[in-house]
Amino acid sequence: MVHIPIDRSKPIPLARQIQGHLERLIQERMLTPGVKLPATRELARDLGVNRATVALAYDELVAAGRVRAHVGQGTFVAGPMDVPGESAVDPAPAREVAARVAVDWSGLLSRGAQIVAGDLERRRLPALPAPPQGLISFAGGMPDSAMFPTEAFRRVLNAVVREEGQELLQYYPVGGYPPLRRFLSMYLLRSGVEARPEEILIVNGSQQGFDLIARTLLDPGDCVAIEQPTYPRAMQVFRSFGAQLVPVPLGDDGPRPDALERALERHAPKFFYCQPSAHNPTGLTMSADARRRLLEIAARHQVAIVEDGFDGSLCYGPRPPAPLKALDRQGLVVYIGTFSKILFPGLRLGWLVAPRAVLDRLEAAKQIADIQTSALIQAAVYRFCERRLLERHLARIAEEYGRRQRRLLESLTRRVPRDVTWTDPTGGFSLLLSLPDGVDSTALLGRAVARGVSFTPGPAFFADQGGEGRLRLSFSSVPVSRIDEGVRRLADVIRDARRRTAHRVEAERAAVPLV
Amino acid sequence: MVHIPIDRSKPIPLARQIQGHLERLIQERMLTPGVKLPATRELARDLGVNRATVALAYDELVAAGRVRAHVGQGTFVAGPMDVPGESAVDPAPAREVAARVAVDWSGLLSRGAQIVAGDLERRRLPALPAPPQGLISFAGGMPDSAMFPTEAFRRVLNAVVREEGQELLQYYPVGGYPPLRRFLSMYLLRSGVEARPEEILIVNGSQQGFDLIARTLLDPGDCVAIEQPTYPRAMQVFRSFGAQLVPVPLGDDGPRPDALERALERHAPKFFYCQPSAHNPTGLTMSADARRRLLEIAARHQVAIVEDGFDGSLCYGPRPPAPLKALDRQGLVVYIGTFSKILFPGLRLGWLVAPRAVLDRLEAAKQIADIQTSALIQAAVYRFCERRLLERHLARIAEEYGRRQRRLLESLTRRVPRDVTWTDPTGGFSLLLSLPDGVDSTALLGRAVARGVSFTPGPAFFADQGGEGRLRLSFSSVPVSRIDEGVRRLADVIRDARRRTAHRVEAERAAVPLV
Repeated sequence: MVHIPIDRSKPIPLARQIQGHLERLIQERMLTPGVKLPATRELARDLGVNRATVALAYDELVAAGRVRAHVGQGTFVAGPMDVPGESAVDPAPAREVAARVAVDWSGLLSRGAQIVAGDLERRRLPALPAPPQGLISFAGGMPDSAMFPTEAFRRVLNAVVREEGQELLQYYPVGGYPPLRRFLSMYLLRSGVEARPEEILIVNGSQQGFDLIARTLLDPGDCVAIEQPTYPRAMQVFRSFGAQLVPVPLGDDGPRPDALERALERHAPKFFYCQPSAHNPTGLTMSADARRRLLEIAARHQVAIVEDGFDGSLCYGPRPPAPLKALDRQGLVVYIGTFSKILFPGLRLGWLVAPRAVLDRLEAAKQIADIQTSALIQAAVYRFCERRLLERHLARIAEEYGRRQRRLLESLTRRVPRDVTWTDPTGGFSLLLSLPDGVDSTALLGRAVARGVSFTPGPAFFADQGGEGRLRLSFSSVPVSRIDEGVRRLADVIRDARRRTAHRVEAERAAVPLV
Repeated sequence: MVHIPIDRSKPIPLARQIQGHLERLIQERMLTPGVKLPATRELARDLGVNRATVALAYDELVAAGRVRAHVGQGTFVAGPMDVPGESAVDPAPAREVAARVAVDWSGLLSRGAQIVAGDLERRRLPALPAPPQGLISFAGGMPDSAMFPTEAFRRVLNAVVREEGQELLQYYPVGGYPPLRRFLSMYLLRSGVEARPEEILIVNGSQQGFDLIARTLLDPGDCVAIEQPTYPRAMQVFRSFGAQLVPVPLGDDGPRPDALERALERHAPKFFYCQPSAHNPTGLTMSADARRRLLEIAARHQVAIVEDGFDGSLCYGPRPPAPLKALDRQGLVVYIGTFSKILFPGLRLGWLVAPRAVLDRLEAAKQIADIQTSALIQAAVYRFCERRLLERHLARIAEEYGRRQRRLLESLTRRVPRDVTWTDPTGGFSLLLSLPDGVDSTALLGRAVARGVSFTPGPAFFADQGGEGRLRLSFSSVPVSRIDEGVRRLADVIRDARRRTAHRVEAERAAVPLV
């Protein structure tokens, strides 16, 4: 059905009005090639006109090549090829060009929206060559969908809709599906985190966790201390709420304590955001001692901690120390967990654990953000976990990701030049590589893609500047059999870039007058 | 599995440490009655201790009545009934009481979080009597889950996971599932809204629509003009971003033009939020003339319009005029649509239509908020629509809701006192009723619930004050057969309250000294 405004007071015949309106919709691509127009009888009834009037309008459209009539099937919008002299290129949308715009939207943007726009602009990558067939991408940072337990999930989802669908498809309490909260309470206890079900809030993935924390705790101008390097999307959220980021460099074992002390003392941030286990991008894990020291410093400065808790199941060596939240006896820590890495990112399912006083506020923020997270998805994931399918899936993927990590480390050791170094990952999906002096990762990317390999340039993980000489390699989505070839290509472009850099340095040296 | 920190350097025997830790977890309800403890063999292996050590700890717990051992099944946490002298009441959580809290969370709250807390506090309803069996609730404002097409949805969901699951469960582009955006483009065209698929952004229900608009356009202190009365959750979002609400009273046909002019002139709001069709709470629909006038005023003042577009299918009389967005030739209007009313609220699925310049910014905000809306849910809803199941469902529910609306109007006409009036709804789920002078809807609620009927007191729909003499009756969730009885009960409590009010007024008059 198409809504066509017709005006009987105008001197234009009704058939012409209908034809003109449809013509404009087709021209502006509102009605695209192949779309079926309503039957003349229906449209005539809808518009309250004679059927012959609509038929006349359609005939004119056929004559103009705008639509095609197929006897017994109906009338369809024609492709541009059917219109003589019209190219296949989308014409400039007449509507937007013609309209006198009354509102200057860019002048209406909030400061947060302006910050986001600026961030996106600053981090825009240069135009890349079209990737060749067979690109090996270390850029993803996501789980490998080839290992998704899709069929098992289909079965639990189906059962859940069948048995509880009516209730789950209605509005649902904001806190979450109670059995899932109870399951998470027990799941967290395995790693030593003691959270009652009512201290757990279900959210749309860790991203919404950041967002709710930001809107609950941050006012424009507040400071947030972060590890450097760190997860770009977390930085982006905090900045979009007007926060100043205070970077604390990562040392061999977590954030450098002296730098952390100084940052907390000078900037009195609202909280410190960190990833103690399987840190993204470095893959590093803090020792138990470093965790205790971090908590002690934070408590002394009365600064809250936002702990992004990578799941211990995806540490491929020894079990990581207990999360900060497990050691937190003073209600300092808000913990963020997610099913995105251990199950499916596309479900958008995560959770927050927080002291009750702040959880109430996070819950109110969640309600304002989107009322609730889909209870249907929560129930399906709960059932998946309860049947121990998550456990089985985790064992399977941890083995495979561990294998990919080892292969990447072996290949790097064997193939890249000596002056390239990298972090020693214990888990997660990635590591951070340091390039030879003078080689810029953003500039390198174009040549790497042309050579058939990609990665994420380092500046993405740094707050304001820095990271030019680093790049993240994510191994989670690359099959073991392709890793070595990917590293070989990468090593080639690094060697090549180093050679050019060396030439440039020599040329510059040669140009320096000897005084 | 339970993580138990044991410390070999302590003089306390390991079995005693394990026992003590488990005892505390049970006491603090971290391990709840019925939970199965890990097998002694597994726990021993996990902790790196002798199996006899774990067995000894378990024996002590059995002796203390904390756990029960069932041969061949395992060891389970005992219920409070099993522990002599312990009541079933949850003991005060020792952990929280004992902890010296280092962070004063209430001191860390953002202004937005404080505003939300204040709003919740102000709108808190007085303690209500326990509702009797058979409460008839006009309070909901939600679709009736008894009419959900759950089984049909199960089938499309199942098919979608089977055929596209792997792709849909991975990260997905933020804009939305392309076929759903194309479907919505055609769906909107029926009501005259011309939006190309790329001008439509998929969001988590209209609530997230409000939220993204607020964060994209509002800074603290900005003004937002609203209809009065209006939808409470929209007000709450705008206020949580620090906006000042400027109420424009609703007249017989939309917001009163003089008041709107004055509000736009004096306060220069960023936008005007309105519901032109089947307005919540009143059920009113603006005429085409009023819509044109509204657009003209907004354009003249260069104020954007946020149109909350109730679906025309749920207008039970004549088809409502085209949405503001359909008449908008100047790029003034951001349109919000949702599947919550026409399909399932629990899916959290809605959409925004906006001029491309602002849609880009809304899309960036969406990515920050939660990366994307579940593509699986989007694909399932698309398939549901594409198979014309939505059309069929809409016809069915529109008929039933129309019937409920008519029954409510008939019952009100027949039963309530003459000095009670109400709005004349054209669609939607509710109407707004005005009580006799001096009768307060919030005070009335307690007595109404005791009498077996409930509703939403008017102040919820007013920005700061007002609405005391109004209440919303939502008919969507009350079966036709119960409506008349509900109105009878309501009429009783109104009559009763009016009598009391009259007595009080007389008593007050009598107390006035004759001078």
